Amino acid sequence: MSVVAETPAPPYYAVIFTSLRTEEDDGYGAMAEKMVELAAVQPGFIGVESAHESLGITVSYWTDLESIKSWKANTEHLEAQSLGRERWYSSYKTRIAISASPPLKY
Amino acid sequence: MSVVAETPAPPYYAVIFTSLRTEEDDGYGAMAEKMVELAAVQPGFIGVESAHESLGITVSYWTDLESIKSWKANTEHLEAQSLGRERWYSSYKTRIAISASPPLKY
Repeated sequence: MSVVAETPAPPYYAVIFTSLRTEEDDGYGAMAEKMVELAAVQPGFIGVESAHESLGITVSYWTDLESIKSWKANTEHLEAQSLGRERWYSSYKTRIAISASPPLKY
Repeated sequence: MSVVAETPAPPYYAVIFTSLRTEEDDGYGAMAEKMVELAAVQPGFIGVESAHESLGITVSYWTDLESIKSWKANTEHLEAQSLGRERWYSSYKTRIAISASPPLKY
């Protein structure tokens, strides 16, 4: 179950992954779960939040850009990305953003 | 229905609003819909994506920080924020982030 992530004072990085699924489900759930577990043990990982409705949104938080690059290039993650493009997502977008510092008071 | 938002080349701003709901539903759906409609006609608004599962995630995109500040201070939005704190959300977090420019190639 996803909860509101604990994040440090800025700056840190957010990777916003938004996707629309195809009808195909073959292996998606298991892979999604595996990728969250694997991301969580990478250097620089802070936390992750996700929700899926008609749209799926996963936001992961990282200490620095190098850690994001390393995770993107992780062998198992590359395989998952490839399957995602070919099989599971009809459209998707990945955005990388740096938390504003100082943040607006919310 | 939420779709993958069209966003311009960086830089632009993302407001990541993550929330956990209370059991109380009184007026939530109507208010959430109204706020999306109202946000969409504000200066500087680019787009919005949202998904709700156990966690709710809404990411709105804006051209600049001033537009985000103005939207935060909008009278009807202030009322919705207040009701959200008092009634609808057991926990929530709002993060503001600037899209990385140049973005990583994804």
